[in-house]
Amino acid sequence: MPILVVGSVAFDSIQTPSGSVDRCLGGAATHFSLAASFFTDVRVIAVVGEDFTAEHEGVFAARNIDISGIEHARGRSFHWTGAYHDNLNEAQTLQTDLNVFANFQPKIPTAYADSEYLFLANIDPRLQHEVRRQMPRVRMVCGDTMNYWITGHAENLAHVLRDLDTLLINDGEAKLLAGETNLVTAAERILQMGPKTLVIKHGEHGATAFFSEKSFAGKVRNRFFRAPALPLSTVVDPTGAGDSFAGGFFGYLASQKNLTPAVFKRAMFYGGVMGSFAVERFGTERLQQLTRTEINQRFELFRELSHLDAD
Amino acid sequence: MPILVVGSVAFDSIQTPSGSVDRCLGGAATHFSLAASFFTDVRVIAVVGEDFTAEHEGVFAARNIDISGIEHARGRSFHWTGAYHDNLNEAQTLQTDLNVFANFQPKIPTAYADSEYLFLANIDPRLQHEVRRQMPRVRMVCGDTMNYWITGHAENLAHVLRDLDTLLINDGEAKLLAGETNLVTAAERILQMGPKTLVIKHGEHGATAFFSEKSFAGKVRNRFFRAPALPLSTVVDPTGAGDSFAGGFFGYLASQKNLTPAVFKRAMFYGGVMGSFAVERFGTERLQQLTRTEINQRFELFRELSHLDAD
Repeated sequence: MPILVVGSVAFDSIQTPSGSVDRCLGGAATHFSLAASFFTDVRVIAVVGEDFTAEHEGVFAARNIDISGIEHARGRSFHWTGAYHDNLNEAQTLQTDLNVFANFQPKIPTAYADSEYLFLANIDPRLQHEVRRQMPRVRMVCGDTMNYWITGHAENLAHVLRDLDTLLINDGEAKLLAGETNLVTAAERILQMGPKTLVIKHGEHGATAFFSEKSFAGKVRNRFFRAPALPLSTVVDPTGAGDSFAGGFFGYLASQKNLTPAVFKRAMFYGGVMGSFAVERFGTERLQQLTRTEINQRFELFRELSHLDAD
Repeated sequence: MPILVVGSVAFDSIQTPSGSVDRCLGGAATHFSLAASFFTDVRVIAVVGEDFTAEHEGVFAARNIDISGIEHARGRSFHWTGAYHDNLNEAQTLQTDLNVFANFQPKIPTAYADSEYLFLANIDPRLQHEVRRQMPRVRMVCGDTMNYWITGHAENLAHVLRDLDTLLINDGEAKLLAGETNLVTAAERILQMGPKTLVIKHGEHGATAFFSEKSFAGKVRNRFFRAPALPLSTVVDPTGAGDSFAGGFFGYLASQKNLTPAVFKRAMFYGGVMGSFAVERFGTERLQQLTRTEINQRFELFRELSHLDAD
């Protein structure tokens, strides 16, 4: 089933210990949709400026991603400039030029209205809530957020959280959102805010799912599930790793007939797989060149490096 | 097969956000041997002072641990005073009183000479090397170390590393030892220093084994294996978690006839299991009260929370 994603399509200028790139295609919706496109059809709602050309459209087209919902506005696209130093888990934002994104008002095209899976990428929670409200018959909604919205827009974010099936955030965001230093206690508090299930991403240490009594109608045996990450000797560019995780995770979920605990766990592994590919090159380069065979092989590698029966 | 462990038997005075204890039984060899005793026979070489009484002997005796190799010296036992704050992964040492430990010269009793498994707990690498030298027919040697020896006694430590089957250290120690910020690169460098296999402990994020071409005579399919940790809402006292991990890990290994990749991976899980119990109470309290049934149940929980086929 197709996924509808709303979020940013942007240009990124990035410095990492491996090098730098200037104005490469990026944005949460871009990374998410490329990753998800290996599993299911994807539809994108975003806004771009006049600097978004046929070449950039081609990146989506090559993966059969429907970008008829991308609005073209006068001016320039969202542009993020950032740097990573020795700690590749932490980006330093050098400049944020919202440009056309400052006045983004997501509109859902008629052709997208039957989407049963909705991903609310990291944007203003007022916009996330607005999109959610316009999709009353959606079957599953996943969302992301960040420190900026957690600290400055808590009330708007609360509306979004109440309606989420799965929230995907990282360790720091979870602790900040809950106001707790222990991750398990933080997860318990966040699950009380609304999401049926919480997935916390630990960067190089994988990800943990925290289930509630609302997950899978209570049919999950344990409260946790841990998915590994691939130990990597070189991380060229961590930008978009979290969105690629979300794309692999939600793309696989949307491709499956039923949402069972077993499907959810495999989705966590596919999330890790897509994140591990994303960081191998700058921007979207690796996901553009990826094949389904490589994904399947790496999924098997993830299984082998975490399962007792693999030898 | 019995394990011989050489290390500290000490008293710990500990403050954590959960409370505090004064002079409870501790030390690396204590935590290690209690954890390992659920899997195999354990023999201890250490030194204690006159404050080590029949009550403390009873803790070892209750788990059938052979402490005939513990030397009783005049004076007081090693005493560590430390505190943990919000970040329970990091202890702040408030005071270290080496006492009788300052002149520790490990001697191997004749009754211990046939031990085929040797654990070199975190002590002066000169003593580790000396003990190793006296046990030429040992079948498997595992060791631990810490920042103090890595930075100040690198040359002595190098002698120990050359002869190790498995080195067990944590993230920070691995990066310091290798002089690398990337964990995979650090692991590769450390494997070149001698250990056949390296296990890096990530605290709440579990542990990763890094294999070399010398691990299991090259019969391991992948270079990595990741074992989970149990997400815990309350960590009462992290002291001894790493030694309990080592005890569960090496205790299980020594209890098995053959060292295969499958056995090694299960040993990693048992390490995590014993570490997760150790932190539930202050000092050795939880390990003293533990049963093999509880261990088996938690092992199964570790499997369920990391394996795709568990539901």
